[in-house]
Amino acid sequence: MNERDALRRLASDLPRAGDDAAVVDGTVITTDMLHDRTDFPPGTTRYTAGWRAVGASLSDVAAMGGAATAAVAVYADETFDPDELDRFVAGAVDVCEAVGAEYVGGDLDEHVEFTTATTAIGTVDEDDASAGSGGVTRGGAEPGDALCVTGEWGRSAAALRLFERGTDDAVERANDLFRFTPRVADGRALAGSATAMMDSSDGLARSLHQLAESSGVGFALERDAVPVHPAVDDVIGDGEGGSVDDADRDGDEERFELAAHFGEDFELVCTVPDADVDRLREECPAGLVRVGTVVEADEGVAADGDPLPDRGYTHG
Amino acid sequence: MNERDALRRLASDLPRAGDDAAVVDGTVITTDMLHDRTDFPPGTTRYTAGWRAVGASLSDVAAMGGAATAAVAVYADETFDPDELDRFVAGAVDVCEAVGAEYVGGDLDEHVEFTTATTAIGTVDEDDASAGSGGVTRGGAEPGDALCVTGEWGRSAAALRLFERGTDDAVERANDLFRFTPRVADGRALAGSATAMMDSSDGLARSLHQLAESSGVGFALERDAVPVHPAVDDVIGDGEGGSVDDADRDGDEERFELAAHFGEDFELVCTVPDADVDRLREECPAGLVRVGTVVEADEGVAADGDPLPDRGYTHG
Repeated sequence: MNERDALRRLASDLPRAGDDAAVVDGTVITTDMLHDRTDFPPGTTRYTAGWRAVGASLSDVAAMGGAATAAVAVYADETFDPDELDRFVAGAVDVCEAVGAEYVGGDLDEHVEFTTATTAIGTVDEDDASAGSGGVTRGGAEPGDALCVTGEWGRSAAALRLFERGTDDAVERANDLFRFTPRVADGRALAGSATAMMDSSDGLARSLHQLAESSGVGFALERDAVPVHPAVDDVIGDGEGGSVDDADRDGDEERFELAAHFGEDFELVCTVPDADVDRLREECPAGLVRVGTVVEADEGVAADGDPLPDRGYTHG
Repeated sequence: MNERDALRRLASDLPRAGDDAAVVDGTVITTDMLHDRTDFPPGTTRYTAGWRAVGASLSDVAAMGGAATAAVAVYADETFDPDELDRFVAGAVDVCEAVGAEYVGGDLDEHVEFTTATTAIGTVDEDDASAGSGGVTRGGAEPGDALCVTGEWGRSAAALRLFERGTDDAVERANDLFRFTPRVADGRALAGSATAMMDSSDGLARSLHQLAESSGVGFALERDAVPVHPAVDDVIGDGEGGSVDDADRDGDEERFELAAHFGEDFELVCTVPDADVDRLREECPAGLVRVGTVVEADEGVAADGDPLPDRGYTHG
């Protein structure tokens, strides 16, 4: 059984567990585990790891439209190197400060591999509920709504390629790119209007399929509208699969692949009433770009008229 | 650097991180990681693991005098066996129900070893604060207060020996013993009166040293007053170190060792004004037993007049 099937099975037992975060009595709570082998490429500093791991949980609070209040983390490693631990905590503290939350510690453990488990909590306004439990869920998109995203996409894909280059400059830039700002302020701005929302940890394409399934709708995505992070252009061609005789077309394909399928960008994907888009664009600090339209379920999830495969990075 | 030194270092950076749980705006939050090698002896069922792991976090909420509201868990294993996962979730759901909280899911991950990270949240009444941040902390014990404990001690030590026996009956009983009831109701009853409180995850002796350090006091423990779980008597002599020519004395030593030094019983250790003990005894569902008195710091931590070593189980 893979992770997605297991999550689907859990969701049927635990009705509050199928979204980015659970909401209980107005409190949002979400937890994640990240570890060396699958989540932190060689070259990732502990400061970046602390920032990114805690940021991933804060991003889930943002995806519910919640105001993040606090985060905790378990830090587990083969041995306790005090300097590494300090740097991890500094990253955790700084990402919390970036979104107005407080890092309040956690637990230490020994493990065979550097592993961190992070939890963030926040609060939601009851009247932002797109479903009964409070918080903006994945389930309220309606045909005709505008499909929008925050920020710029492909940032983590570009970072991974820079880590692979391995030069000091590339690794430093990769660390910068890995330290994303969780979109808590944007989520708050969107909370009153969004009909459905999630974060993009599994990539844009997979996010659209998940929103489509939860809301019972389809999507018409415009490929060229997807805002691509400038770092993506710097790493085009680093990967395999480039063909010499049609480099431009392949470059465009690769660009879209990195922006829409790789994932881990922790941007928000949301659906909002068409009339609200212009106002919300002004209110989102990370920017809000309309990339398509919600359509009927039988039209499926398409990009420029072609089916968009439900393909992304399956996180270990 | 060992875990205790690392925690002390963290506590100086993170003022809210030195207690059983942090309190932010009236919300208690606490997180723990448990894994196969160090926390779940061979024979531990996944139902027991789910119960115990989530219970450990609920116990930390109880130790702050909080009302537990919800818990989440990360479940990580080499592969996803759906039946194992179902059993883990069932244990998590049941331990939450036992204390009036709700299990709301979490995250799945692949890992080289079965690992779970659990987080529980709850609420505290502002007027239960024994320190500024809300919640009952470790820092408010005063000389003259009564030293009290909930429940019966040595339960987990006995379970470990039963797991080691390995027979079907012994393992079944060990699993029963491992599924403790987090003392949330008791913690709520104690919250209005207790001057200091913590849970006993590191054992009674170590808990007393930690309370002594945080409160700037000493303790006079009466060894015979410590309520010992009946299962302890069934495993006396299973361990090493029994001497043939003085079996009774050694039996008493071993009994106290298992009850006071092993730990992981997840009972509450608290200090309360002398005049409140009788009333609180009636209000604690798990029972409340006076086991000693808070004394001045220069008297140290003693049991029947002898120094009580700061020795317990250092959890991996």
